[in-house]
Amino acid sequence: MNYFPEFTAFLRNLQDRITGELDQLEHDQGSSIQFQSDEWKGEDWLAGGGRTRVIEEGLVLERGGVNISDVHGQLPDDLAQKMPGDSRDFRAAGISLVLHPRNPHAPTVHANFRMICRGNPESPEKLWFGGGGDLTPMYLYEDDAAHFHSIWRSVCEAHSNVASYAKMKKDCDQYFYLPHRKEARGIGGIFYDYMQESPTEMLAFSRAAGNAFLDAYLPILRKRSIQPWTAEEREFQLWRRGRYVEFNLAFDRGTQFGLKTGGRIESILMSLPPLVRYKYNYTPAQGREAEIMAVLRTPRDWI
Amino acid sequence: MNYFPEFTAFLRNLQDRITGELDQLEHDQGSSIQFQSDEWKGEDWLAGGGRTRVIEEGLVLERGGVNISDVHGQLPDDLAQKMPGDSRDFRAAGISLVLHPRNPHAPTVHANFRMICRGNPESPEKLWFGGGGDLTPMYLYEDDAAHFHSIWRSVCEAHSNVASYAKMKKDCDQYFYLPHRKEARGIGGIFYDYMQESPTEMLAFSRAAGNAFLDAYLPILRKRSIQPWTAEEREFQLWRRGRYVEFNLAFDRGTQFGLKTGGRIESILMSLPPLVRYKYNYTPAQGREAEIMAVLRTPRDWI
Repeated sequence: MNYFPEFTAFLRNLQDRITGELDQLEHDQGSSIQFQSDEWKGEDWLAGGGRTRVIEEGLVLERGGVNISDVHGQLPDDLAQKMPGDSRDFRAAGISLVLHPRNPHAPTVHANFRMICRGNPESPEKLWFGGGGDLTPMYLYEDDAAHFHSIWRSVCEAHSNVASYAKMKKDCDQYFYLPHRKEARGIGGIFYDYMQESPTEMLAFSRAAGNAFLDAYLPILRKRSIQPWTAEEREFQLWRRGRYVEFNLAFDRGTQFGLKTGGRIESILMSLPPLVRYKYNYTPAQGREAEIMAVLRTPRDWI
Repeated sequence: MNYFPEFTAFLRNLQDRITGELDQLEHDQGSSIQFQSDEWKGEDWLAGGGRTRVIEEGLVLERGGVNISDVHGQLPDDLAQKMPGDSRDFRAAGISLVLHPRNPHAPTVHANFRMICRGNPESPEKLWFGGGGDLTPMYLYEDDAAHFHSIWRSVCEAHSNVASYAKMKKDCDQYFYLPHRKEARGIGGIFYDYMQESPTEMLAFSRAAGNAFLDAYLPILRKRSIQPWTAEEREFQLWRRGRYVEFNLAFDRGTQFGLKTGGRIESILMSLPPLVRYKYNYTPAQGREAEIMAVLRTPRDWI
C-alpha cells in the first residue's frame, strides 16, 4: 500500500486552504499583501520538489511561510545511519509552516506534518509519521493557550488508537526547549515523531491534525491582530523573536537536517522572523513581560 | 612552566586597551555611550570567571562585546573525548570580541585569542593555542581588505617559526564558511587552532596578534564610520547580518561548545548583531550589493 498519493494530494489541498484563509484575513483587515507561491525542483541527491508559499510585510503577518514538499533519493551514508531502516531508497513528504504576526499580542505559530519512508513506497521497509503544532506567544493569554491545546486534545481523542494528547503535549514541551536558557520556546501544543505502527490510522490522524490547524490558530490570530500595541511591546516582541532564532538555528533537528543535507535553504529558513533585536543581558523585571518569561521556565497544563 | 599568569595578565591589559580605544572613538564622534563591564564567576563544572564588556547603541558601534575569561574544571565525558589529551583537569583562558558598527560601510569584525590546557597547568599534559581575526564587510572596500590582511601577514612573518600567513589565511577562509549558502562569512583574515608545538613561541605570537588587532581594525572603523549612508544601504546591512547569525548559531564551533557546556550565555551571544532582517529569497542583482556577494562566493588573495 503506497500512502504517498493520498498524503501528497492532501498536503496540496491543505496548503491551499491555509494560505487561502490567511490571504482572506489580510484582505479583511485592509491589506493587499498575499502569499506568493514558488514551485521548485530538488537538487543533487534529493529529487522531487515542492511548493513554497511566503508572505512578507502583510498587515497581519509580518512574515510567514507555508511549504509543502515531496522529495526522494538515495540516502548518503551519514544520513542513512541516523534513521530507522536499512534501504537506501528514501522518500519524504510534508507540510511545514511558521507564521510571524506583526502584532506583538498575536503569537507566532509553527506546525508540521510529514510522512517518511525507506525502501519502495509500494511496500516500504520502514514508514513513519511525524509532526505537531506549537504556539509561541510574546504575551501570555491563558484563554488562547487553552483554546490552542483543546483543539489538539480533541484531535488526539478522536484518534486515541494512535494518538495520546498527554504524551504528545509532554513531548512538545521537551522538544521546543532552549537548554542553554532553561526556557521553553513557547507554550507548546503537540509533537510526535517516528510513529511506525498502524500507518493507515496514522495517516488518518495526520489528516485530522492538519485539518485542525486553522481551528487551533485562526481565531487567536484574528482576535489578537486587531489589538492596539505600544512601541515598548513591539521592542519586547523583537527581543523574544531572538529566542526563536536561537532555537531554530542552534537546536531544531529539522532545520539542521535541512541545512546539512542540501535542502532548499530559502524554504527552510522562512521559519526565521522578519526583524529581530538582540540585547545584552536583558531580563524583564515585572509586568506582562516578566509573566510570559516565568511561564516559559515552568511548563503548565493549559486545559 | 605555567603560561597562564602571563597570558591572563596580558588579556586583561589587552581588553583595557581595546575597549579604551573604542570608547575614545565613540567620544570623538560625539557619543556619550561607553563599554559597560561585568565581572562574572563560572557555574556548575566550570569554575573561574571572566570580565564581559559590552557596548550597545553607540554612535559608532551599534553593538559589540570584548570579553575575557579564565575558566577551569573537571571535563565531563562528552567534552573530554572531543579534545586532545586524557586528563580531566581543564583550563582555558582567552579574549573574544565581536564588533557590529552602525554604519553599513564599516565592517563587522571578530577576533579571538585563547590558550587551553589539560592536566596541571604547572606541567600540562596538553597545552594548545587557538585564535585569529576576520573581517565581515557589508560593502567591499578592497583597500580595507588589503590593510586588514597585511597587518596579520606582518605578525605572522615576525613569528615565522610558528606562524604561516598563507596557511592561517586559508584556514580562516575554510572555517568562516556557510556551506548551505556556499558563501564565506566575510573576507577572512587568519585562523589557527590546536597549536601544540613551541608554546613559548606561540605565546609570543598570540601576544603579538592580540596587539595587532587595533592596528588591523581601528583605521578602517574610523574611516568608514563617518561615511554617509542611505536607507537602502542600511537595509542591506540588516540582511547581511542575518548570515552572521546563521553562521554563529548553526556552525560556529566556539558558540556551540559554549551553548552546550554551560558557558555564560550572554557573554557568548554578545556576538549576535543588534538588529537583523530576514527576507525570503533575496539576492542582490547588481551594484555594490552584488559585488560583495560575488566576493563571498570566491575567496581572494587580498595582498
